[in-house]
Amino acid sequence: MKIYEDSYAPNPRRVRIFLAEKGIDDVELVPVAIMNGEHKTPEFRTRNASMRLPVLELDDGTHIAESRAICTYFEAIKPEPPLMGVGAVDRALVEMWDRRMELELFLTVANCFRHTMSFMAALEQQIPEWGEVNKTRGQKRLKALDKQLADREFIAGERYSIADITALVAVDFGKSAGIEAPEDHANLRRWYDAVSARPSAKV
Amino acid sequence: MKIYEDSYAPNPRRVRIFLAEKGIDDVELVPVAIMNGEHKTPEFRTRNASMRLPVLELDDGTHIAESRAICTYFEAIKPEPPLMGVGAVDRALVEMWDRRMELELFLTVANCFRHTMSFMAALEQQIPEWGEVNKTRGQKRLKALDKQLADREFIAGERYSIADITALVAVDFGKSAGIEAPEDHANLRRWYDAVSARPSAKV
Repeated sequence: MKIYEDSYAPNPRRVRIFLAEKGIDDVELVPVAIMNGEHKTPEFRTRNASMRLPVLELDDGTHIAESRAICTYFEAIKPEPPLMGVGAVDRALVEMWDRRMELELFLTVANCFRHTMSFMAALEQQIPEWGEVNKTRGQKRLKALDKQLADREFIAGERYSIADITALVAVDFGKSAGIEAPEDHANLRRWYDAVSARPSAKV
Repeated sequence: MKIYEDSYAPNPRRVRIFLAEKGIDDVELVPVAIMNGEHKTPEFRTRNASMRLPVLELDDGTHIAESRAICTYFEAIKPEPPLMGVGAVDRALVEMWDRRMELELFLTVANCFRHTMSFMAALEQQIPEWGEVNKTRGQKRLKALDKQLADREFIAGERYSIADITALVAVDFGKSAGIEAPEDHANLRRWYDAVSARPSAKV
């Protein structure tokens, strides 16, 4: 198995953390430099027509793109420790929280980053006003997340899950786009320090 | 079980189609009028702090928000017919296609709709330029989808899946935002006619 990825991009990091939490270390990582446009070559498009990273290549040549779909594959072939919930209700609730972290935080941060950072002009038709709207939304979402973490250890409850991975990567991505949690967000800080201290966060 | 939803909104339709395909007809539908702001009341926020529809309420009071997470719950309690893939690889590939249809088509259409339709100004800080960028992207994504459907009956392969539901709702949503597939997109037309003719598409 191989994973085509870029160590500077946030989405591939989601999968690397997931694999580290699973204790899976036999997947070859193949670098593809987004800033050099290597994800847009005709050769790469045969792996993922959407021209995004990461992409998992199975030994039979099957390609699986989309970070969360790649995680779904690994959750199925190595269920322990569970990172996507156990049982019908828990699986749905973990997915709900993972989607909230992705759609409400990660994509908001991404929009801010893509539309406000000057070096992203090569990759995005930038609309700075849209970037600023997302900066404000990102800050607000972090504030709401701080409140939501008041009565729970992790994003989706009492167990570390894929929702923590998505949120951690989004928070770190946010820093590079100027979206930071203020120091007085004590619950968010406590959660962030805990998930950042796990060995998986270093990959 | 109850589902809080709005029959005019696209996301609740995703869940209604999913339930119809599963043959599940014992879930009470409770209307919540988005255009009247009923999804933002303090009472509704106790069901979903993100103020979005649909929300599934289980008999024990548990709330599950996010369309796809709700579908994950129903797939687990009633696996037949499978709509989210069977086995590790297929589950991942169906999720990959579902995400492509959601992130690349549905959200693109939603951005166009929210930022260009004048009556949406009450719900969105509109940036018309961003709406137009998404209109162009939506048209392009439909063109790419037409090519992708040349060698497969359904979005994720030879079996109808949740990815077809997401795509169907996105295509119909797109029409209301002025994003239409040209008549010469024969593969897309063939697929659209087939999935639209299923009884589930009428709910």
